[in-house]
Parts: sequence; C-alpha cells; structure tokens
Amino acid sequence: MYTYNHSLANINSLLSEASRHNIEHTLDPTIRDSKANTNWSPAPPDHTPSVVFFPHTTHETSIILKACNDRCIAVTPFSGGTSFGGALAATKGGVCISFERMKSIIAVHEDDLDVVVQPGLGWVELNEDLKERGLFFPVDPAPGAKIGGMIAMSCSGTNAYHYGTMKENVISLTCVLPSGNVVKTHNRPRKSSAGYDLTHLLIGSEGTLALVTEVVLRLSPLPRNLHVGLANFSTFQEGVQVVVSLQKLGHRLEALELADGPTMQSVNVSGLAPQRTFREVPTLFFKVAGPSMHIVQEQISTMKELCKTQGASSVEITQQEDEMNIIWGARKCMGTALLAMKKNSKDIFLHSDCAVPISNLANLVAGTQDLIAQASAAHQASWFCANVGHIGDGNVHSSIVCPQEHYEVAMSVIMKITRLALSLEGTVTGEHGIGLKLREALAEEVGDDGVTMMRSIKSALDPKGVLNPDKVFKIEKEGSAPKL
Amino acid sequence: MYTYNHSLANINSLLSEASRHNIEHTLDPTIRDSKANTNWSPAPPDHTPSVVFFPHTTHETSIILKACNDRCIAVTPFSGGTSFGGALAATKGGVCISFERMKSIIAVHEDDLDVVVQPGLGWVELNEDLKERGLFFPVDPAPGAKIGGMIAMSCSGTNAYHYGTMKENVISLTCVLPSGNVVKTHNRPRKSSAGYDLTHLLIGSEGTLALVTEVVLRLSPLPRNLHVGLANFSTFQEGVQVVVSLQKLGHRLEALELADGPTMQSVNVSGLAPQRTFREVPTLFFKVAGPSMHIVQEQISTMKELCKTQGASSVEITQQEDEMNIIWGARKCMGTALLAMKKNSKDIFLHSDCAVPISNLANLVAGTQDLIAQASAAHQASWFCANVGHIGDGNVHSSIVCPQEHYEVAMSVIMKITRLALSLEGTVTGEHGIGLKLREALAEEVGDDGVTMMRSIKSALDPKGVLNPDKVFKIEKEGSAPKL
Repeated sequence: MYTYNHSLANINSLLSEASRHNIEHTLDPTIRDSKANTNWSPAPPDHTPSVVFFPHTTHETSIILKACNDRCIAVTPFSGGTSFGGALAATKGGVCISFERMKSIIAVHEDDLDVVVQPGLGWVELNEDLKERGLFFPVDPAPGAKIGGMIAMSCSGTNAYHYGTMKENVISLTCVLPSGNVVKTHNRPRKSSAGYDLTHLLIGSEGTLALVTEVVLRLSPLPRNLHVGLANFSTFQEGVQVVVSLQKLGHRLEALELADGPTMQSVNVSGLAPQRTFREVPTLFFKVAGPSMHIVQEQISTMKELCKTQGASSVEITQQEDEMNIIWGARKCMGTALLAMKKNSKDIFLHSDCAVPISNLANLVAGTQDLIAQASAAHQASWFCANVGHIGDGNVHSSIVCPQEHYEVAMSVIMKITRLALSLEGTVTGEHGIGLKLREALAEEVGDDGVTMMRSIKSALDPKGVLNPDKVFKIEKEGSAPKL
Repeated sequence: MYTYNHSLANINSLLSEASRHNIEHTLDPTIRDSKANTNWSPAPPDHTPSVVFFPHTTHETSIILKACNDRCIAVTPFSGGTSFGGALAATKGGVCISFERMKSIIAVHEDDLDVVVQPGLGWVELNEDLKERGLFFPVDPAPGAKIGGMIAMSCSGTNAYHYGTMKENVISLTCVLPSGNVVKTHNRPRKSSAGYDLTHLLIGSEGTLALVTEVVLRLSPLPRNLHVGLANFSTFQEGVQVVVSLQKLGHRLEALELADGPTMQSVNVSGLAPQRTFREVPTLFFKVAGPSMHIVQEQISTMKELCKTQGASSVEITQQEDEMNIIWGARKCMGTALLAMKKNSKDIFLHSDCAVPISNLANLVAGTQDLIAQASAAHQASWFCANVGHIGDGNVHSSIVCPQEHYEVAMSVIMKITRLALSLEGTVTGEHGIGLKLREALAEEVGDDGVTMMRSIKSALDPKGVLNPDKVFKIEKEGSAPKL
C-alpha cells in the first residue's frame, strides 16, 4: 500500500530543504494550476500541485526528487504541457517538477549527427538553432512540445513514417531515480548491446520511472530538393493502397498523410488555409525529398503513376515555396480546423489515436465511420466525424464533434473505436500515450499480465510510488501494493 | 539471497512434471554439453545443464519455466548457440530450455511488411523462405543464429547501418515470465506509445528476464539494382571520412564496412577468397541499391567522388553477380580468415566489439593499434592485430592473434581497448552482448547505479533469479539480495 504525506508540515519541510539548496520554486496558484490543468488536458482543482520546483541542473533535480521520495511526497513532472489524456494531473496532490529552466543545447556533434540537450528545450527551438548547420531533429509533435515530455510520451508526428518516432531518435538519456541516483543509460554510439535497454524503458514511461535531465538525440540532414504534393481520391482505401505499393517498391517518401473528406471540409470551413479551397474528398498529402533532383524526380514519377493506378482524380506536386506552404499548412492546421465544425461553442471535440497494421487501416476508418454514424443516428443528432492519419505508420486520429450532452456516449464510441483497433491487431495509442484516460484500454491491449509486468517494474524503480502516480496504470491494484 | 535447489530429487520432480505434460527433453551428456559449451563460447564442464527441454509451444514453455521457478531451478535458454562471451554457460547448473523445436513461420503479412515467427527459426532460413516474395529480414549476424538468440543479444551485422539492429526490426514479442505468465508486449502496428516499452526491455536482456516464444519482425523489400564496391585508402581515417561526408549529404548506402591492411592480409593468407588477391591496405567495402537504376547511378557517382576526395588509390564498383560475390565474400569471410594468422595452432584469437561515435572511430583504431603494438613489444612477441568495422555504426572488431601463453596479457589489452572506447564516448559492446565476460566493463559503462537499476528490474521480473543467472551482471551483489 502506497502512502503519501502531503501535510503542510511535510511540504514545509520539503520547502526548507529546497531553500537550503537554493532550488527555485513557487507557490503561485496560477502557475501551480497551469502545470496540471491545460487546454489540451483539463484537470480538476484537487489535481493541482502544492509547489512547483524549477531545477536548473541534474544535481538539483536529484536533490529535490530524493527529498520528495524521503518524505513520501508525490511528484508530477512538467515539460511543454501539450500532452493529452491527463498525464500532467497531480492525482495525489504533491508537487510538480518543471523543467523549463533546463533548456540548453549542451553540444552539437555534426559529424556524428547527434546533439546533447536538456529536457526543457523545445523541438521547434532546437531546429531553429540547427538550421544553419543543415541539420534537424525530425520528430514533430505539437509546436509547444519539449524534449522531456516528448520522451515521456514517446510521441511522433508527420515525420515518423520516414524518420521514426522518439524510440528511433533518442540515443541516450541521463535520468534521476527516486533514490536520487543518477544513471546515464548509454554513451553516444549509434548502437549498443550493453545490458538492458534502459533508454527505451524510459521512452514512453510518462515520467513514472525516473526524471530525464539530459538527452542525446539523433539528428538528420535537412531534406534537400523538397517537393510537396497532394492527390485526391474517391475512397480512403485508394490512398492507403498507394502507400502499400510505394513501400513494396522500396521507396520511402519524406512524409505521407491521408485526410478524409470531412477533414478537408473542416480546413475549408475553418478559414485556417484561406489561400485556396480544397476538394472535400479523401486527400493524400506527401513530401518528396532526396540528395539530388534526379532521385526526387524518379520518386515523383513513381508517385504519380501509383496515384493514377489507384484512380486519383488529381495529383499536384510543387516545389514553389509558397505553394508548398499552402498545401502543408492545410495538413498542419487540421487539429485546430476540426474545432471549426462545432455548431455550438459548447460542443465537444473528442479524438482517438489508434494505430493498426496498414493493411487494416481502411477497415479501421470504415468501421469508425459506421460506429459514429450509428451513435449519431441513435441520438437523433448529426455528429461530425473526421479521420486523418499518419498513413505510413497506420496511425489515424478519428474525431467526433458533438453536443456537450452527448459527452458520455461519444466517449463510449471513442472506446469502441479503440477496441475496433485492437481487434484489427492495433494499438490504443500510436503517439499520444496512456495518461489517465486509456489505462483500461492498455489492459485490453497487453492483458492484465502485461500491466502487472509494467507495475512490477514501476515498483522496483520507484518503491514508494512517488513518480507521477496513477499514470499509465493505477498506482495500486485493488488497494494492495503491486507484486508480480 | 538467491538459493537454487539442483538436488537429484528436485530435478527428478521437474522431470516427472515434464513427463506428465509430455514435454520433450533429454539427459544425453553430449547434447547437454553442446548447449553450454560451444566453439564460440567455451564453458567448463560444471557449467553444463542437467537436462535439456525442447518445448514445442508457448504453453509448454510456460509450464516448464513455471515448474523450474516453483522448484528454484536455474534455467539457461538456448537458441542458435553462436553467441560469444559465455551467455550460454549454466553457471549455477540447472536446466536448459532449447527452442530448436519452435522454428515455424506463423504468418507473413506482405502488405504490412512483417512476419510472425517462433524463436528457434534461423534468419537464414527465414530469408530463404521470404525470397520469392521479394522480401527479407535484414539483420545478418552469424549464419547459424536464430531469432530468439538474436533478440536476447540485441545483435546486428553488416546491414545495421542501413536497416538498424534487432532494436529497430522487432515489432512485438510474446514472452513467458518465471511465474509462467504469458505477455504479448504489443500488437502489430508499426508504432505505439502504449505503456512501458516491454519489447525493447527484452531485446538485449540475454534471456535473464523472460523467455521469448513468438515474435513479430519487420521486413524490408529485397534491395534492387544491387552493386558492390571496394575502395582502397592509405589510412583508416580516410575511409571513415567518406562515410561522414556521405551521411551529411543525406545518402544512405546499403552497407558500409571498413577493414584495415592486416585484415585484408588475413583474407589473402586464409585462401578463403581465392579468386583474387586483395591489396593489403585499408579497404572500404560497400553495397549500393535502390528502387531504380538512376537512383543507384547517382549514389555511385557520389561515392566515387567522395572516395577520390579522400585520396582513394582505387575504387571499383560492379553489378556482375560473380564479382559481387567475390568482393562481398571477402568481407564475409573475415571472421574466419583472421584465424589463418595463427603462427601456431595453439595461438589464441581474441577480439573486441566496441562502438564509438563515428568521429572518434579513427582514434579508437589508432589507439588500439598502439596498445597492441606496445604490449606485443613488451613481450618481445609479434602479435597480429587487425581491425574491421561496421563503419556506418562506428562499431569495430579489433582482433589479437598471439601465443597461448600471452592469454592473460592479451585479455588485459582487450580490456584496455574497451576502456579506450568508453573514454571516446563509446560502448563496450556494439552487437555481441555482455554475457559473462563484459560484466565489469558494463559497470564502467553505465556506472554502479546503472547496474543497480538493471538488477532491480531483474529482481522484479524474476524474483527467484532462475532465468540465466549471472549473465549481464552477477545475480547477487556481494552476497546479498539486490535492492535499489
């Protein structure tokens, strides 16, 4: 049984310890609230931390985490705050450790294509800095995301199809355990088979096992001879089939994204891409790049041919910067554009994050459309349903916009979509993580024994359960301490 | 404190349980010895298991592992038996579970580019089967290696530079824990952020955490328009520089391997590549392939230019099948060819497996040559020293051939090379694993706190310490049970 002591006396003792080491912190209610309760992931007031600490170094992080562990005070880490599903909520109260003061680039190794950074650095800022060297870090989630949170959630984005997710782009981590021990999981070589893969164990562990304080990231050369393209189809399946054929031929484009008709409608309605009106049919967005123009031309002609074979009604490809920005801008705005489909400002917006083997993707989307249409009809409402996918990875975000009073039933439809993905050999979350909301779905995905296995790892590395309790799985199983 | 009960009565009780479930097993001394004591990794007679089990299914594996765990009987798993460094030795005695009866291909998903297999299947046999579909599994260690052991050791080979190691090519695992619980870590989608990454935790864990009984592997289309090339340089550094320049340009060849002059000498002396005599200078071996001949030609001309810039004395590239086989055959025979440099049949052959960031690779090789020359001179002997590397990954195997009586001092030189790699921000093992021999080196790489972190994961998943005890780290730390 885990017990926490969040009494005023205990918190004050922690504050004294922090002051003794000059560790920056605040009790400001607005700041405290902002660390747990975000637009992306609202949390109730009792899930607000009592203090927010701002360590500047690995050493300070170690001091404060050990002090919390010694006092049985729960710790919720904070990075960019763009995650979904409740990963930031301080469910047990306790304190927040925010990494916003640790945002330096420590070293860039151009010949090795890697960079050493602190966890509070944003990927956008990192790429701004790397641009002049002709390099970039390819993982591209929400613009506000920071490296620490990106590791915690094992995120990805539109570049994952070509460059991989965080799992493929983190070389090593320095982390602090609840004991205060500091472990560097790995040095800087590209590969290693030296013992357990602690790096990957921490990626996606949502801050429940250790706090990451320094990271070596893999870099890539900036794409050359970039072209952006767009193809219209009459069905989602046609777009999927282009991707399947492409990969069998051994081509790997820079990016491949597929949006259905309603998603394209939302782009038009939103006014977020005002430079042109898009056709409201399934649309494949893609990027092509390569070390030479010949190589790119070759890929473009293959792509045109495959789109034609699948019955594309139009294919356009451009390397004009302004046109590329308009087309890719339309893809990038979709997350926000879907909000424009609210008929009433109080309407709610829910979405899934399933990924399936690509051969099952069209079935997932068709099944999703059916589920939403059925629920919508049963409630004599016209819910808005849209699907947009990181198609190369089989990852699709299905969205529902519906009246607020349908929240419960819409949530149950999202869960049905998630179960449909599982029945199609998929995962309940491709890139957003489990947080609080998908804990039961996780148990359906890996089984109770899988969750028990995770729980026993948690218990081994964080015996008092102080690190981000209740995320990924409930900290306690039916009131008792976890055991295998 | 872990205690094992390998008494005859306890082993007999296990055998009764196995017989009750019709689980195939043998007491044959030759077979028992062959599971622990191999040419690659000799083990003394007291490291031989008492019984070898041959489960046919996940269920049988679960029954036998649980029965061992219930009885505190140590279990050493066996797959292909090609690993180095003692991973197969039954240090505590106990039993062996061999996966040679579980070697089926369960399903091939061509559109998803994945395959479901059992752990006893060899990668060579898998690729034989996949060939007619135009697909292959790219991880290429020793020809006798089986998928289960490849996962255990997190191996790689000459294709890792392009396709990644086991870490990048395993999608999911079904594993059996000592409790007998069966966990499937993941379904079949290409990406997931659903909870802890149990897949990667098991890859490279050397059979110390769970036994893998089913695997989903990522496949790739067979390379098209394959060319094989060879370039001669006057220094190792020049070859390294070609690779650095190539990756900055965004080119990724199929394979890049660099051998030094003495390695090339061993190829000539061995007679293993009799069709031609190779120049005994640093030699870059490479493969170029791509979806079209235009793309390949483009890469070839870039490669030729970069080799010329670095002062290559010759560059040849061919797509004639017989010539490709001769050149790549020379690369592939090196592991055996080096044995030909023994002056006396009792001479010993030792090698390292370090990987460093590529910018430090030439320093590692130069430092290695110095260390070996110094030791050789100090012993008034002429040790043979050779270096061959998976250059794109910064992974180099440095070999010593020397008289048997120099074993201890040669081993200490290998450890010095390993420490040199650590000082150059490298790893003590790029692809062979820790086994018994590199346990102290692992502690130097990840620190005592890193090993303690691994040890506590081991203790959580295998509380009685039955699974492959003493591999990766000693099962007990100074006589006491592990704790964080």
